[in-house]
Amino acid sequence: MVDQTRIPEKFDYVTFSNYRQVAAAIRTMIVRGAPAIGVAAAMGIALAAKSSKTRDRSRFTEELRRAGAVLCQSRPTAWNLFWAVERMLRKAEATPGGPRQVAEELVLEAKRIALEDIEANHKIGELGSSLIHDGDRIMTHCNTGTLATVSYGTALAPIRTAFSQGKKVSVIATETRPRLQGARLTAFELLKDRIPVTLIVDGAAGYVMRQGMVKLAIVGADRVTSKVVANKVGTYLIALAARENHVPFYVAAPYSTFDLKRTEDVEIEERDHREVTHIGGWRIPPRGVSVFNPAFDITPVSLVEGFITERGVLKPADLSRGL
Amino acid sequence: MVDQTRIPEKFDYVTFSNYRQVAAAIRTMIVRGAPAIGVAAAMGIALAAKSSKTRDRSRFTEELRRAGAVLCQSRPTAWNLFWAVERMLRKAEATPGGPRQVAEELVLEAKRIALEDIEANHKIGELGSSLIHDGDRIMTHCNTGTLATVSYGTALAPIRTAFSQGKKVSVIATETRPRLQGARLTAFELLKDRIPVTLIVDGAAGYVMRQGMVKLAIVGADRVTSKVVANKVGTYLIALAARENHVPFYVAAPYSTFDLKRTEDVEIEERDHREVTHIGGWRIPPRGVSVFNPAFDITPVSLVEGFITERGVLKPADLSRGL
Repeated sequence: MVDQTRIPEKFDYVTFSNYRQVAAAIRTMIVRGAPAIGVAAAMGIALAAKSSKTRDRSRFTEELRRAGAVLCQSRPTAWNLFWAVERMLRKAEATPGGPRQVAEELVLEAKRIALEDIEANHKIGELGSSLIHDGDRIMTHCNTGTLATVSYGTALAPIRTAFSQGKKVSVIATETRPRLQGARLTAFELLKDRIPVTLIVDGAAGYVMRQGMVKLAIVGADRVTSKVVANKVGTYLIALAARENHVPFYVAAPYSTFDLKRTEDVEIEERDHREVTHIGGWRIPPRGVSVFNPAFDITPVSLVEGFITERGVLKPADLSRGL
Repeated sequence: MVDQTRIPEKFDYVTFSNYRQVAAAIRTMIVRGAPAIGVAAAMGIALAAKSSKTRDRSRFTEELRRAGAVLCQSRPTAWNLFWAVERMLRKAEATPGGPRQVAEELVLEAKRIALEDIEANHKIGELGSSLIHDGDRIMTHCNTGTLATVSYGTALAPIRTAFSQGKKVSVIATETRPRLQGARLTAFELLKDRIPVTLIVDGAAGYVMRQGMVKLAIVGADRVTSKVVANKVGTYLIALAARENHVPFYVAAPYSTFDLKRTEDVEIEERDHREVTHIGGWRIPPRGVSVFNPAFDITPVSLVEGFITERGVLKPADLSRGL
């Protein structure tokens, strides 16, 4: 996988040979973005299966479950992680034969999940681009491109497709504190694609909307329940500003992000205070200050104009009926 | 004045001997905060008067007007700047005698403006503290303390007074990108006062309110017209999140911030792109990205629960009647 912590300074590939390394890579955000985390976890299960030395099927199953538990503990919010681990474990259960055969099937299944992600993203691009008109400026938050997925992205997919169809689109990207995925990753991806991108601080999102500078907003999601969207911290403020200023606010996400059995709020990960207190090795606030660093926030689905998925653009009301 | 660009790393006093240096200090944010800028500008006019070599009264007036124009060009948004320059020029006009006598009066007038600021802030503290109850956690944005004023602060004044009255209050401070005044200056001031302070990124303000973590929000202002509040970028989002979550949103500002003859939107300063692209000398986004860097935003007065001034807590409707 690409080491996302060093972009744009360095663009390095890193290779892992066991699931514990993959879990650590998810935890430290070497890999990030809900769909990318899901695929990484699936690959982690495949690595656990391949490296197993047992010939005993029930011990093998136990090993896979343990690997799944470790991977699921890496980060709590993105549903794709749990979805992918569960799918892999179900596939293991449903596959006949000994551990060797199951391991082979799990490698295939992880690759299938990766391929399906690419297909879903292109479909999201196609369906979402119909919402974008020539000349539109679109606000997005965090990074939801190739780096957040296997390829093409979720919220960036409709923008990419619209651009490739010849529509003159441009993007307002929020820098996305504390990890600056907008400034570092989204700017990097869009510049590479030659899609015009303008960076703002997160606090400027409301002003930009009030000034009529954007036609729509598209963000990704880490988890969608029937009532709320958990996504990168700052999303909720963008959704509120969008409603206030009559800017349609869309969430682009594959089905693997939807956790519709859940209605209550999602667990929101709190991360290391140093993400807030230090930037590029430079300490900002005085020593002794307390920090609260939620990585995500919660947006009621009522603020969402539509969910752009690989199977269609859903309305909030559709979610309570299940998918 | 204190060089605010280096806090908390260094706490240095700098001294200026002419108005051009003062204008440069305002422009580069060595001094910042609407009331502090106003007082600095008044001192700048006093310096211009004191250093004048002419004995001709009309030439002297011309020199003061030129100094006023230079000072007024330093930053466009904070009304206190224009208010202070106008008050100084009016005082010059109304003072009989030669340039020497007028200069002496202008030095006194600048000191009066500084003293009145301190008095206003303590009054704001007293009036505002009645809105704060024992145990309240209060959100604030940017820096509105001693550093933003001559002493005591605007939005920090009610918090300070409540704390000094023995109320157990605590503060959620937004870091306030791009210049990080919340992380650097507000955290510094509150830690010094031993008032508990927790730092969040700007994007987390909505989540914190949705979680019921704050009882009220108090911010300062750079300019208040009868229809809108211009304040540090990010204020509008906090106001929207406050309304959505039934958190009373207050603006604390002295009368010198109120520009009630104006109804249309205020000029919003756009600042150097490097404020967004560089932190502590470290470049964040890839080269070639565009940046939009408004220093302030616009909040409709309808989102404000009350304006805490030195003469009382005003309702938005009071503003259209004038002060």
